[in-house]
Amino acid sequence: MSPRGRRPGGVDTRAAILTAARADFAEQGYDATSVRGIARRAEVDPALVHHYFGGKAKLFAAVLDIPADPAALIGAVVQGPRDQVGESLVRTFLSVWDSDEGRQRFQALLRSAVTHDEATLMLREFLTREVFGRVVRELAASAGSGRVPTHQVELRAGLAASQMIGLAVMRYIVELPAVVAASHDELAVMLGPTLQGYLAPDD
Amino acid sequence: MSPRGRRPGGVDTRAAILTAARADFAEQGYDATSVRGIARRAEVDPALVHHYFGGKAKLFAAVLDIPADPAALIGAVVQGPRDQVGESLVRTFLSVWDSDEGRQRFQALLRSAVTHDEATLMLREFLTREVFGRVVRELAASAGSGRVPTHQVELRAGLAASQMIGLAVMRYIVELPAVVAASHDELAVMLGPTLQGYLAPDD
Repeated sequence: MSPRGRRPGGVDTRAAILTAARADFAEQGYDATSVRGIARRAEVDPALVHHYFGGKAKLFAAVLDIPADPAALIGAVVQGPRDQVGESLVRTFLSVWDSDEGRQRFQALLRSAVTHDEATLMLREFLTREVFGRVVRELAASAGSGRVPTHQVELRAGLAASQMIGLAVMRYIVELPAVVAASHDELAVMLGPTLQGYLAPDD
Repeated sequence: MSPRGRRPGGVDTRAAILTAARADFAEQGYDATSVRGIARRAEVDPALVHHYFGGKAKLFAAVLDIPADPAALIGAVVQGPRDQVGESLVRTFLSVWDSDEGRQRFQALLRSAVTHDEATLMLREFLTREVFGRVVRELAASAGSGRVPTHQVELRAGLAASQMIGLAVMRYIVELPAVVAASHDELAVMLGPTLQGYLAPDD
């Protein structure tokens, strides 16, 4: 195959795109990586990247083995009732991670974040752009005001994320018995107000 | 030196105790390890272990490179005003971990928790016994009531820990800019009510 050749669609194509994406994200970070560049590296048409993965965020989630499309889940959360954003986020988070597979993937994700600087950089850029960025924009829009300074909003989104990541560390890594034993309802009731307080403090 | 010999006090003794403690904690976990057993392995008198480290919890903190005595700090927090437990915990936590050295040690601690099961077991038992256990006991005593079931109290202590661990992950590992830039005062004001809500929900 020549360097400018194009692979046909098929089983190998999806794997080739994933491999190219992994390399590009690792070398350039999330922000600087483009679908076009990944397609070039994988020697496929950019349309195939969209066909198989639906875009850069979902492709990144696939590379990191995140068992869901974070942007879609976050979108569902912020489009629900504003006074239930907190509980809704907790339930959404648990629905994504709370399985044997999710637990293993969270462990792998945290392990790579702790041990590889480039993974940390990717994760930080992804969280900022696709997860917090979305929550921040949607909540600011639904509040219809610019009262809260951007720094405050970003800090609040980051603290909400810190609570959920901490929950996952205690439930999936440290496995503290009381936190492992807690039901989704219990966690939603107890953590909901925390997230609500960070993300929608005026409601 | 015979197996029953006793090392004299000195530079080597402290190192020998640390080495023996590291091995015992790793093999047996936190709960099953005793100062007497560590002394036997290090071939020193148990009194020397107390002399150099002040007991099992402090020795464990030294093994894990925790840059402070957690039990003493937790004690100081819960002996202050009950309605300021939340803010006080945040400030105490930051005072321990928020330095170049503390950050490196947190990274090492999380790395070992994520990569070695035995470290996770040690950490879980230590957190349960020396950190949460203390908060739970002290707050229950100061409330003068048994209203909250033990499971609830342990869950609340675990969730408080999850918020602080999550903060450390975001501030020291992921390094989300808004969370890194936040001052101690900002974090105390924003996270204080969260911890207060978990630990002293009736105040």
